[in-house]
Amino acid sequence: MVRIKRERWQNEFSEWYNELIEAAEIQDKRYPVKGMNIWMPYGLKIMRNIEAFIHKEMERTGHNEVLFPALIPETEFQKEADHIAGFEGEVYWITHAGVNPLDVRLLLRPTSETAMYSMFSLWIRNHADLPFKVYQIVNVYRYETKHTRPLIRVREISRFFESHTAHKDFDDAERQIREDLEIFDRLAKFLALPYIVSKRPDWDKFPGAFYSLGAEVMMPDGRTLQIGTMHNYKQNFARAYNIKYETETGDHEYAHQTTFGMSERLLAAVMAVHGDDSGLVLPPTIAAIQVVIVPIPKKDSPYDVVAYARGIMEELRNAGIRVYLDDREEIRPGRKFYEWELKGVPVRIEVGPRDVESGEAVIARRDLLEKESVSREEVVERVKKTMDSIMENLYTRAKEFLESHIKPVETLEDAKRVFEDRKGIVEIPWCGEESCGLEMEEILDAKMLGIPYPEEAAKIEGKKCPHCGREAKFIARFARTY
Amino acid sequence: MVRIKRERWQNEFSEWYNELIEAAEIQDKRYPVKGMNIWMPYGLKIMRNIEAFIHKEMERTGHNEVLFPALIPETEFQKEADHIAGFEGEVYWITHAGVNPLDVRLLLRPTSETAMYSMFSLWIRNHADLPFKVYQIVNVYRYETKHTRPLIRVREISRFFESHTAHKDFDDAERQIREDLEIFDRLAKFLALPYIVSKRPDWDKFPGAFYSLGAEVMMPDGRTLQIGTMHNYKQNFARAYNIKYETETGDHEYAHQTTFGMSERLLAAVMAVHGDDSGLVLPPTIAAIQVVIVPIPKKDSPYDVVAYARGIMEELRNAGIRVYLDDREEIRPGRKFYEWELKGVPVRIEVGPRDVESGEAVIARRDLLEKESVSREEVVERVKKTMDSIMENLYTRAKEFLESHIKPVETLEDAKRVFEDRKGIVEIPWCGEESCGLEMEEILDAKMLGIPYPEEAAKIEGKKCPHCGREAKFIARFARTY
Repeated sequence: MVRIKRERWQNEFSEWYNELIEAAEIQDKRYPVKGMNIWMPYGLKIMRNIEAFIHKEMERTGHNEVLFPALIPETEFQKEADHIAGFEGEVYWITHAGVNPLDVRLLLRPTSETAMYSMFSLWIRNHADLPFKVYQIVNVYRYETKHTRPLIRVREISRFFESHTAHKDFDDAERQIREDLEIFDRLAKFLALPYIVSKRPDWDKFPGAFYSLGAEVMMPDGRTLQIGTMHNYKQNFARAYNIKYETETGDHEYAHQTTFGMSERLLAAVMAVHGDDSGLVLPPTIAAIQVVIVPIPKKDSPYDVVAYARGIMEELRNAGIRVYLDDREEIRPGRKFYEWELKGVPVRIEVGPRDVESGEAVIARRDLLEKESVSREEVVERVKKTMDSIMENLYTRAKEFLESHIKPVETLEDAKRVFEDRKGIVEIPWCGEESCGLEMEEILDAKMLGIPYPEEAAKIEGKKCPHCGREAKFIARFARTY
Repeated sequence: MVRIKRERWQNEFSEWYNELIEAAEIQDKRYPVKGMNIWMPYGLKIMRNIEAFIHKEMERTGHNEVLFPALIPETEFQKEADHIAGFEGEVYWITHAGVNPLDVRLLLRPTSETAMYSMFSLWIRNHADLPFKVYQIVNVYRYETKHTRPLIRVREISRFFESHTAHKDFDDAERQIREDLEIFDRLAKFLALPYIVSKRPDWDKFPGAFYSLGAEVMMPDGRTLQIGTMHNYKQNFARAYNIKYETETGDHEYAHQTTFGMSERLLAAVMAVHGDDSGLVLPPTIAAIQVVIVPIPKKDSPYDVVAYARGIMEELRNAGIRVYLDDREEIRPGRKFYEWELKGVPVRIEVGPRDVESGEAVIARRDLLEKESVSREEVVERVKKTMDSIMENLYTRAKEFLESHIKPVETLEDAKRVFEDRKGIVEIPWCGEESCGLEMEEILDAKMLGIPYPEEAAKIEGKKCPHCGREAKFIARFARTY
């Protein structure tokens, strides 16, 4: 049995990730605009499989797909004060068309609230129009000043999912947030990604939101990556964009709104969480190629391994499995193994003359780097079972990793020690005061992710905020974040 | 039998189209940036069905999907002289990010040659890399100064298809153009759209191309709409972007390149070509809803028409048909008929108490506005046959319309008369001189579409160019165009 190595993965994660994104042909980073990258066919196929799942979930939950223009007039953008303040430093401005200056400057959407909501005010008239649920997957733009990193921190988010909903009251908006969390949970299971949800502190909520939730995964280096957000806007945007509806009693009320956002960071999380020193390890659910078959011909052997491999390929394809037969003659089997392991193909099948002779095939699984011999008739059945087992193993392994990286502490010294080792998330009792929160962020050189959601009040009985000594009202999570 | 009316469709096409795009919920034109519109769920579903077909064709022909950033640095854009000249008047410029001016201005892609080709020069090294075939479906931007019209002439083309290929020599690039034409033909059949292909005159080819082909459909008002283009670039862009490969003999050659482009105009063509005075008529292949079932309950009837309708719905759904049961109680059947006819649903099924009693259902087809009663058991079979028959009828009707609007003429007076009646395309013998071509465009107030492709030399024997009197070398097509 080969031992899986995760040394570089953990200790040199940043280099591991930056190399792999190109070596595994996910994206090409050489596009001549900083923070904007090119989706390569292999990476895009994986992302499309993630998107297909999202589209299905949207259909299941009655969200309608729309597509808004990517350009927003400055005049629309300026309607919600907090929102402007939050984004104005990082928007791209279009000032000219051809050689002429524009009368009204246009900006590239950093997110679509200000593009959508003046239309919502035309579309939503009556309580019968509610709940109103739409979504789109589009490109958005943010002039990030921090260090950029493919899929994680980019200036063009090219696969940005955003759903926008409107409701008759706060309760129905809360029901929507619960639905978003359920959708997110199903998606995370589909990606074998364990995660935590935190309610962001007020100073870090989405610009214009009443409250924000964020879902995080644990990266190999102990930093967290936000991969999903849900916001309850209350009536903040509805007031700014005049989104009113007629109630059953003939009154006119502002709608309550929510949004739910995700992006190509989902793929970054999959790469980071499941990978190892040999490269990617893709969940079979989203792998562009679920099974690669490598024939291992031998000179002077009477057995036609390629024909045998082709037979297996056809059987797997007919069973609905995404299979690829790597029959390139100029490349040696060992080199092929290396390539497909790097690209994270979940299952490899090897067939040599001996397998043909004995009516068998070798099945190798990418997650454990283990092999087994199975009889020819069992191949399809065994491949399916192996893929199920990979899903389970990836999830379990990642869950253990996540859980072992969440440390409850009661003092700032203990918290600091956790971060010195880059060991993940600390949970600290907190009085709930913004000043204490911000000062603890400063002391720990970490970000407050927020309080566990849904709140677990039980944990704080009798605990003190380590910064001010007052009674704790919450458990606050801190982490170094991407 | 109801007579199909196509009076407004033909005589007030522009108003008909502009009303229908919103009434049928294809797009909303009220977005506050001129020439940029919002895809509504119903319209987007239809467009997605068109795109799904394109994706499948791309897979069938070995094109890989990529996604490039939408922003192009000014420095990249300026490498091919003709291309700049052709587009610089209509690009949107991004000059600022946040409050700071950018060092290098960025432009929003009007098309992706200048985004892609510096990467091609990195990706293509060896003859074994050729042919190289990629495509994307993305948003592109052109500051149109002419009158804008949804899906047809817009400043944001939000569904822009472009395939880009590289080849070892001119012959292989020509083979690619033939493949593009074959793909286009399959797509056109899928949309029941007859079309013509013309080789554009030199003064109207794509900026940077060696030659350009354009595919046109005939619109109700006799103007043509270009819905597909194929360009052979020869080595023009390869020289500007240094796309070289090593040949089998170790030399280094510039690659030959081609592109193939289409857009949401495909949906505009479907709407325009197949519609009538009652609204859209969608080909079943792309209809968001292929069959709508309208139960017609009667008070005091002992029969449950809604349950009966639901049974039919389930059976159709199991047969893979996109079916919708319109059981809204507050809306009368007549109003429902009107709505679904307007939205172009190909087949309507009506069931009333008498149908339940006699074990029947009424099938109404949208294209002919005809009804027939069929027995309950036959419904699925009959619906399928009706959809096939609709496809055939739409194609045949449109082909007759197109062919009856192509007029061979030998004098400019005859050509003028055709255009005075807005009667389509004229085919005029032409000496091949640019000056004559441009002057005839002026005299006729029409555009030269180009010469029939593939060329039909036979037709010009003994004919004279009506402008200069010299011997004709080609047949040239002229039309008023969108």
